[in-house]
Formats: sequence, structure tokens, C-alpha cells
Amino acid sequence: MPRPSAPSTPPRASATGRGARTRAAILEAATRVFAVHGYRGGSLAAIAGEAELTQPGVLHHFPSKEHVLMAVLQERDRENVKQLRSGPWHDGGVTALRTLLGLVEDNAIARERVQMFTALVGEGVSAAHPAHDFFVERYAHLRYQLIRALQRGQDAGEFRSDVDMAMIASLVLAAMDGLQIQWLLDDEETMPPRFAVLLDMLVTYLAAEPPAPG
Amino acid sequence: MPRPSAPSTPPRASATGRGARTRAAILEAATRVFAVHGYRGGSLAAIAGEAELTQPGVLHHFPSKEHVLMAVLQERDRENVKQLRSGPWHDGGVTALRTLLGLVEDNAIARERVQMFTALVGEGVSAAHPAHDFFVERYAHLRYQLIRALQRGQDAGEFRSDVDMAMIASLVLAAMDGLQIQWLLDDEETMPPRFAVLLDMLVTYLAAEPPAPG
Repeated sequence: MPRPSAPSTPPRASATGRGARTRAAILEAATRVFAVHGYRGGSLAAIAGEAELTQPGVLHHFPSKEHVLMAVLQERDRENVKQLRSGPWHDGGVTALRTLLGLVEDNAIARERVQMFTALVGEGVSAAHPAHDFFVERYAHLRYQLIRALQRGQDAGEFRSDVDMAMIASLVLAAMDGLQIQWLLDDEETMPPRFAVLLDMLVTYLAAEPPAPG
Repeated sequence: MPRPSAPSTPPRASATGRGARTRAAILEAATRVFAVHGYRGGSLAAIAGEAELTQPGVLHHFPSKEHVLMAVLQERDRENVKQLRSGPWHDGGVTALRTLLGLVEDNAIARERVQMFTALVGEGVSAAHPAHDFFVERYAHLRYQLIRALQRGQDAGEFRSDVDMAMIASLVLAAMDGLQIQWLLDDEETMPPRFAVLLDMLVTYLAAEPPAPG
């Protein structure tokens, strides 16, 4: 599946240590600014201020605010994909589902990143938003990965075969997103125990029928 | 539960037919503008343009863009609450859960309203947003209603008693929100069949154990 066709960021201050550190500082600052004000409400001036740089200093690394946006999203995406590429995910079935709980637990201690993501996807459902295509492709890609993992569970005889795993994949991603919204609005709505109930429900529901006797 | 402490809208052009029609036209226009540009990116000028009014014309009915925002949210909320107040909801248990599918089906033919809601809640997770408190209270209220309906199912012996219905309520709302995001990003991610699978899963999971024989 092709990755998002974002404007590519020219590596003007490429792999030199200082350039890389400044770039990382800008993306950290953008995460904080977008989390609070969204992309629309978050100015390049605010990002520069958070990063303790001048606006020209930011523009030296990223030609525009849109380039900062795409770089922030791609970095967050890379982290998630890295996690899903880890061993247990590829076993599929129940093991893969349990891997997702680890992802939710990681998110539960990364409030700023989760808030940034929720703010940006809320803006990005509009076709007029620069991250729209990124999100369309990101969700399609995640669903694809999830469907494959669930189908491996069916192939192994661990999950029943009469359930459309595309529906289950959509629901699992939906629950993750929706739990983020409620947690961001109310600290007591902790995500991991709620997601664990969903997993428990899924494992019960998907359990293969034991073969008929005889 | 107290309703959101929004700035109240003075009924300057109150119940006169023409005033009410203009007010409704402004809220329709604001729904379209907020759906595409969010509250932050949606200007009063754009709302006025959509409603075929001048900006002073809009300001005659709503003193500020924030007043338009709160009026739009409260109206959408009233519609949902009205639906949940309908008869079957109060029966609780499986019947109440099935009522939610009707809500999802209604949303599935109201794309603009769903997109507006998703855009605004994405902005509203930030404490800096004028609708933040509205959303905090709205979700608390919806969870409360849902928990009560699920507990009625427990009281009636229809649902097992060893499941924390607060967790289930959060998950059901989360799935509704998350399915909206995916549908808005991809038309083929239709909400009702996916939500129906969740209900099926819930009913299976929550089913009370039959009493032990003897």
C-alpha cells in the first residue's frame, strides 16, 4: 500500500547532529501546539516560540506549516507501525489482539501525542484539510494489517470462520479512537481497562466452536 | 445532571416565525461551515455567506461566533436526547441496545451533522476550546444514561451481573465515535452493519448464565 503522498521535506539540514536535534525539537513543539490549537489554530509563530526558535529558523528546516504537519504525522505513524511490526503481531489471532493492548497502554502515557492525533483527525475528516489523504490511507492501512492478523487466527482454527473480519477490524480501531476522545475529556476514563474488556469480549465472541463430537 | 454552562443566547428575535426561520438558517449554515472548516477555521463571514445574510444580520440573532457554536451543539444534543427518551430505551437491556442501532442509522444519513460533530469534538478535547466543558458534560451524561439502561438489563436478569457496565458504556460510545471517523474518511466504511456486529458481540458477551440445574 503506498504511503501518504505528503509534500516531502527536503533534508536541508539533514543528518548533521545539530540539524537533526533542531528538527526533532520543532516536531516536539508542533505536537504541543497542534494538541492545544489544532493545525488550523496553531500558528508557525507559536511553534517557533515553543521550540525557542525564530520563524525563519523553523522555515529553514520545514518550508511551510503544512510540511511540519505532515512530518509530525508521519513520525507518529512510523512509531505505531514499528510497534505492529514486532514479533507477536505476526502470530495473528489472540496473540496479535493482545499486542494492541500494549499500544493502548503506550498511548495512555502519551497524552500530548494522543491529543494531537485526536485534534488532527477531527480536522482531517474534511476533504479540505491537508492531512485528509494521509488519514484516509492510514486507516485503510491499519484496517488491512488488522484484518490479516484476524484472518491468521481464522486460518489457525483459533477464531470462528463465519465472522467478517473487516467489520471486526473497523470496530477495534473505532474503539481505540473513541476511548481516546473520552479519556482526553475525562482523566478517569482510563483506556487500558476498557480496551481490555473489548478484547475479552472479542476473544469470547470469536472463539472457534469446538468440533462436533464423533 | 446540569446541562452545559454555555453562554445563553438572548432571544432577541424570539418566537416570531421569521426570526425563528432565520435562526434555523444560521444554524444550518454553521453546521455546513463547521463541518468543513471546524469552529477555528470557520469564520462568521463564511456562516453569514452560507446563510445568505450579512454579518450584522447573523449578529442580530447570535452575539458572537461562540454563541452560534453553542447553539448548534445544544440543538444536536437535544435531538439525540429526544431519541433516547423514546419508549424502548427505558426498557433497558437488549431492547435499549437495539435502540442505539436506530441512532447510528439516523447518523448514517446525516453526514454533514456527523462531520460537524467529529470536527468539533476533535477541537473540543483541548481545554482551551469554548466547547470543551460542553463535551465533558455531554459524554458524562450519555455514559450515565447508558449505564442505567445496561443495569436495568442486569436487574431484570437478562445480563450477567459480573460485568462493570461503566466499561461497556464507554466502549459503546467509543465505537460510535470511532466508526464515524472511519466512515467520514471512507464511504465504504458504513456504520450500521459494523455497529450491529458490536451489538451482537455485546449481547453474546453479556448474556446471563442459565441458572445451574437443580
